[in-house]
Amino acid sequence: MTDETAASVLDAARRARAAAADLAVLTRAQKDSALKAMADALVARTPEITAANAGDVSRARENGTSEAIIDRLRLDDTRVAAMADGLRQVAELPDPVGEIERGYTLPNGLQVSQRRVPMGVVGIIYEARPNVTADAAGLALKSGNAVLLRGSSSAVASNSAIVEVLRAATAGTDVPADAVQLVPGEGHEPAKHLMRARGLVDVLIPRGGAGLIRSVVEESTVPVIETGVGNCHVYVDATADLSKALEILLNAKTHRPSVCNAAETLLVHADIADTFLPGALAALRDAGVTVHGDERVRGYDDAVVAATDEDWSAEYLSLDLAARVVASLDDAVAHIRRWGSGHTEAIVTEDLSAAQRFTATTDSAAVMVNASTRFTDGEQFGFGAEIGISTQKLHARGPMGLRELTTTTYVVTGDGHVRS
Amino acid sequence: MTDETAASVLDAARRARAAAADLAVLTRAQKDSALKAMADALVARTPEITAANAGDVSRARENGTSEAIIDRLRLDDTRVAAMADGLRQVAELPDPVGEIERGYTLPNGLQVSQRRVPMGVVGIIYEARPNVTADAAGLALKSGNAVLLRGSSSAVASNSAIVEVLRAATAGTDVPADAVQLVPGEGHEPAKHLMRARGLVDVLIPRGGAGLIRSVVEESTVPVIETGVGNCHVYVDATADLSKALEILLNAKTHRPSVCNAAETLLVHADIADTFLPGALAALRDAGVTVHGDERVRGYDDAVVAATDEDWSAEYLSLDLAARVVASLDDAVAHIRRWGSGHTEAIVTEDLSAAQRFTATTDSAAVMVNASTRFTDGEQFGFGAEIGISTQKLHARGPMGLRELTTTTYVVTGDGHVRS
Repeated sequence: MTDETAASVLDAARRARAAAADLAVLTRAQKDSALKAMADALVARTPEITAANAGDVSRARENGTSEAIIDRLRLDDTRVAAMADGLRQVAELPDPVGEIERGYTLPNGLQVSQRRVPMGVVGIIYEARPNVTADAAGLALKSGNAVLLRGSSSAVASNSAIVEVLRAATAGTDVPADAVQLVPGEGHEPAKHLMRARGLVDVLIPRGGAGLIRSVVEESTVPVIETGVGNCHVYVDATADLSKALEILLNAKTHRPSVCNAAETLLVHADIADTFLPGALAALRDAGVTVHGDERVRGYDDAVVAATDEDWSAEYLSLDLAARVVASLDDAVAHIRRWGSGHTEAIVTEDLSAAQRFTATTDSAAVMVNASTRFTDGEQFGFGAEIGISTQKLHARGPMGLRELTTTTYVVTGDGHVRS
Repeated sequence: MTDETAASVLDAARRARAAAADLAVLTRAQKDSALKAMADALVARTPEITAANAGDVSRARENGTSEAIIDRLRLDDTRVAAMADGLRQVAELPDPVGEIERGYTLPNGLQVSQRRVPMGVVGIIYEARPNVTADAAGLALKSGNAVLLRGSSSAVASNSAIVEVLRAATAGTDVPADAVQLVPGEGHEPAKHLMRARGLVDVLIPRGGAGLIRSVVEESTVPVIETGVGNCHVYVDATADLSKALEILLNAKTHRPSVCNAAETLLVHADIADTFLPGALAALRDAGVTVHGDERVRGYDDAVVAATDEDWSAEYLSLDLAARVVASLDDAVAHIRRWGSGHTEAIVTEDLSAAQRFTATTDSAAVMVNASTRFTDGEQFGFGAEIGISTQKLHARGPMGLRELTTTTYVVTGDGHVRS
């Protein structure tokens, strides 16, 4: 059984590798026309997709799955149309493949150029949302990569239907059907084989909760890009404009609490704590936020509950917020370096040198100066689409768009040059 | 014992992490003056270093180590002076930290800039050459990183002496001593703890043979950059200028056979095999090269031995060469994709479309058109120095200089911007 599963995963990976060789030389026009054909097919075959999805939803209900997760799982005509629109938007984006990153001529006359090329085979391991299936396939294809998709078993009927539609849509195009594949097999084993397919799979991107990401990082020999865990901080400096600070804090915490770029911790400079905190805590309470504060924060408001070390490291993803008064900007940075996840930190300040010191010393993928943490997002950054937000330092850091799904190769042109 | 080793490795990593926070904000001038102080100290304290090295060399001799490896291990005044010169050259190079990779203003007025920043803590696991100790420390320091060095146990006295000199030299500078540390402890365990220090160590770079690299890739949860295995190909196309082809082939194979950018396999288009191979095989024989050929190659010269599949995948690092006649350019590419290591391939051709197809379809870090594979090298590429040659696609591909030891952070500046 294990051997069979391994064989079928490796077979899929080998077919992806062969497809990748064909994809690498396609023009933008060829890829875009396949993306549009896929979008049309999703719309035309919506009933098949929603019917398959209805099966997943009813099985999830029988298993007692929470309504929040069922909502993520559910597809209707509007959501399928949104998936199709997503593919059409990706078709509108510039093609990163073929860009010249650097180019120069050496003293000996050799012409060196560093060119952007596809990765080859990209593996995506993700949780219940079936729309990731189409989104990831579109981004991988546009960047010239074959994709191996491993979604949640709770969405397997939906994902199979979507992939079947996307593959069938390649028939009249120059894109090989094996450019998009679901990783076959049941249970956790197929993902494990995918993680060990070094040499066949060039990069794995886990998208989901902290547990999923940790297990991929631990077990994979394929290079991994770690995404998404966000314990984001808002630091209100001594010189902050307090009305900007309050607006940014409320936006960062309450605009969409369930996502990785929402704020989870508030740090306030001691010099303005008396002025800022009473009003801020009241506003947070009005917005339904439970504050977990240190002793000084608790002194301002009886509704604040006592914070523990777990609160400093928590990614709540809910209307909870840890809060602490710090003696200095450097103390705020030390707190962030100790407890943060390296995703996004915001400073609210009117002091240029404070802004510079904060941006230079917090060690995170993104630093906001007088702006909400919610802006760390590929679409907000103008990338057009995003495959995830990297919180590691290797290869990509912060929102990842099409460019981050590519690598480079050096092309060196001579005229019989040899080394002496 | 294991727990003690783990504790001391993690303690070193924590001190490196603290040093990294200080290093990240140093100016180029501060880093360069520490590099020059280190260079001066290496020269001034050469006798201590060579005395420690003499101990390593005599222990290696007692253990029956080969003279080739002892030659790599041995330090004399000239070699220590070369290490010092290397540090001075790194001081002359531009500082990648602070470069703006991209910058733009969004429609809502947010100013986005992607800035180059140090990785943080870089771990290097390497084999017998003690000069790597100073080279890696210099590159890490210049790029604003703390470095954890784990060399071969056969060079431990030499490496300890070098690191002690480098650390002492930081005393009068702004660089903290813990910017440069040897990973403490004996045997294989310390390296294993280093590989599991995810969160403390940002990247691990193994430098050495294929076995070392494979074990780091398999066991590390810290992100790894795979370096150095080179099964490089020279493909002589149907339209090649045969005198250029012969010069490039001989240079690629014989200029320095023991390094990763030396050629290991010759592929010849069938149309010119009769014209090219007899002379080429004779020239290779005169140069002391043993050719391992397919049946057709063997037909041209009795000295050619029969090639097996092992030859197609071999990184000989010696005066051996695998050779095969191929029916077409696409067959050459298919051979390279099947057997190559993704390091460097060369095509010799006068045909522009052949050059374009070869560069677009071989999936390697570097492709040479009418130039020797030996040019894939950070110094040759004008990087000034190199920490290794990456054969993976994530983060860095090809020669890695200072820039490849950095990552980026997004700095986003607003004026109270919130997301709506």
